[in-house]
Amino acid sequence: MKERIKRLFNIINKDIDAILIKNSIRTHIDLSFYYITGLNGVYEQGAAIAFPDGEVHVIASQLEACNIRKKDVNVHVFKNKKDLDEITKNVLKTSKKIGINSEELLYKNYLEIKKILPKTKLIDISKELMKARMKKDDKEIREIKKACRIASDIADELPDIIYENTTELDMTGRIEHLMRLKGAEDRAFETIVAFGKNSALPHHISGKTKLKIGDLALFDFGAMVNRYLSDITRTFVYGKASKLQREMYETVKNAQEVGFDALKEKSTFEEVHLAVKSYINKTKFKGRFIHGTGHTLGLAVHDGGRLTEGSRDKLEENIVLTIEPGIYLPKIGGVRIEDDVLIKKGKIEILTTAKRELIEI
Amino acid sequence: MKERIKRLFNIINKDIDAILIKNSIRTHIDLSFYYITGLNGVYEQGAAIAFPDGEVHVIASQLEACNIRKKDVNVHVFKNKKDLDEITKNVLKTSKKIGINSEELLYKNYLEIKKILPKTKLIDISKELMKARMKKDDKEIREIKKACRIASDIADELPDIIYENTTELDMTGRIEHLMRLKGAEDRAFETIVAFGKNSALPHHISGKTKLKIGDLALFDFGAMVNRYLSDITRTFVYGKASKLQREMYETVKNAQEVGFDALKEKSTFEEVHLAVKSYINKTKFKGRFIHGTGHTLGLAVHDGGRLTEGSRDKLEENIVLTIEPGIYLPKIGGVRIEDDVLIKKGKIEILTTAKRELIEI
Repeated sequence: MKERIKRLFNIINKDIDAILIKNSIRTHIDLSFYYITGLNGVYEQGAAIAFPDGEVHVIASQLEACNIRKKDVNVHVFKNKKDLDEITKNVLKTSKKIGINSEELLYKNYLEIKKILPKTKLIDISKELMKARMKKDDKEIREIKKACRIASDIADELPDIIYENTTELDMTGRIEHLMRLKGAEDRAFETIVAFGKNSALPHHISGKTKLKIGDLALFDFGAMVNRYLSDITRTFVYGKASKLQREMYETVKNAQEVGFDALKEKSTFEEVHLAVKSYINKTKFKGRFIHGTGHTLGLAVHDGGRLTEGSRDKLEENIVLTIEPGIYLPKIGGVRIEDDVLIKKGKIEILTTAKRELIEI
Repeated sequence: MKERIKRLFNIINKDIDAILIKNSIRTHIDLSFYYITGLNGVYEQGAAIAFPDGEVHVIASQLEACNIRKKDVNVHVFKNKKDLDEITKNVLKTSKKIGINSEELLYKNYLEIKKILPKTKLIDISKELMKARMKKDDKEIREIKKACRIASDIADELPDIIYENTTELDMTGRIEHLMRLKGAEDRAFETIVAFGKNSALPHHISGKTKLKIGDLALFDFGAMVNRYLSDITRTFVYGKASKLQREMYETVKNAQEVGFDALKEKSTFEEVHLAVKSYINKTKFKGRFIHGTGHTLGLAVHDGGRLTEGSRDKLEENIVLTIEPGIYLPKIGGVRIEDDVLIKKGKIEILTTAKRELIEI
């Protein structure tokens, strides 16, 4: 962890004496808290402070502090807000310039930091922090791989689990339960299950819709392992695929291959997206790919970078991202295939290994 | 919904022309977005704007906008950030003073609002917004009651569901699955299951610990229905209760009764907490009640108010809150009993109805 902090200060490359990460109550937790501390848990109202030499301090409530078993973090317990402010002031008393994360810091907490440290200069380091978080270290990759294995296993089991007239919500519950039985501490995000025409809505809210013969059945889910996430989507046909469904599926599958190849050949996120998009736009499904090709993945589902128009982020070693083309036909249904990929030197490693071929159930 | 907005502007009672709520990406969604719009869904990067006459505008991405079926909301679809900024500017073009919610607005988004509306005065209305959200209207109470019914049903079924050697994570998955089968759209928060000595940690992270005969088994969970939450805790003894376990249980149960009575007799949140705390401190478990007596409940699990030392919030009609005393004996275990209560004129309605008596399984 000391190495991670030192690398972070190197990437920031600004004249700062410390980094201060401050959480509010759920769900307003700054995920960089976990990046800096390596801890698991919630840490409502807590704070993490890191110094250039790799030293890390955590300020946690009595209820959280008891979960901390780490030896390489200095733990301070606060009983109330006054306490919390005093400890923060004290730990930072010699720091004149402090980095803050505007991307995940609440405005209220910004004002509070200004109040308790009136003479301290606050410098936004959100871009640099995200850049650091985007390139995973070995420990992070290990956790992501575990999360990917759990999600892949379940994706492969889904054809055996789903049954006629099951509801979307029944399946979201089953999937999230199974992930825990396989070693996930939680889901990565709200599981999306969409049957039939609902699958045409990429952000469908799963409900009581029942699975019928002939439906496209789309499952988008991921596991959380030590706070790190996986994110996979598989689409099946419940019954025999129609000609249109088969064409949709094969087009998406080929588009994903185009994406995988582009990861090896291109140099920016945008180029990968444009390669996938232009592939689909050359088919009969022109205009039916209505979202980005993917996003980086880590402590957050959308971990800083997006494979979309205008994204200048560079494809670099140790970035983990999703490749998830889709085709959506309103009132008919949608197909999306999503996998998680680790970028290596000149090659890629696909971390989610579930079958990608069309499965008719 | 128009009435809700008008009431909100009345409570704010400041010279403002509009309210602007701005979301970031998950999990940094301002829950007041749902309060103002009455919508369900995620609305990453989206915004809601309300005017004193009750008019509401929603700015949503293409992926979200298709979920909006409401007639009484003006929907604007943005394709990219530039679009989003332009629409925001346009909807607010005649507004000179705008209320913002510093409690759930990211600092980065605050800076962006300042940038796109440089001449507009931004006024923090977070306290007033929370005050409004604390007192529920009929529609909100209906949703909360549904969420409470689902959680209560499952709490009553738990003794039949748990079995020797089941793990904490198995049970969190089962409970969350069951909630969906009973009509919840999601869990209210990460379900906590704690067996044996783990139950002594109020914020225990559920893991692979197995249930053994003689264990205290603590379950803290809630359902989400149309974005509104319930929150219940039940503690069982798996096997025959020891004398100490029985004493812990009866003390907590009596303490909860003290809390219920105090809700009828006292006038502030702090007074209720002190009544419960001093009751426990007069028993052999002095000092073992280590958290607040409860919190308000609604769109957030901790919906603005806390029943704890120093809280001057007043007990008023239509507030929904939890009463959840607990006793925690390190290395032995803990007992917590939590129910959701609606404050009425001079009386209370306990919304979670699961059995509160000691159950030996």
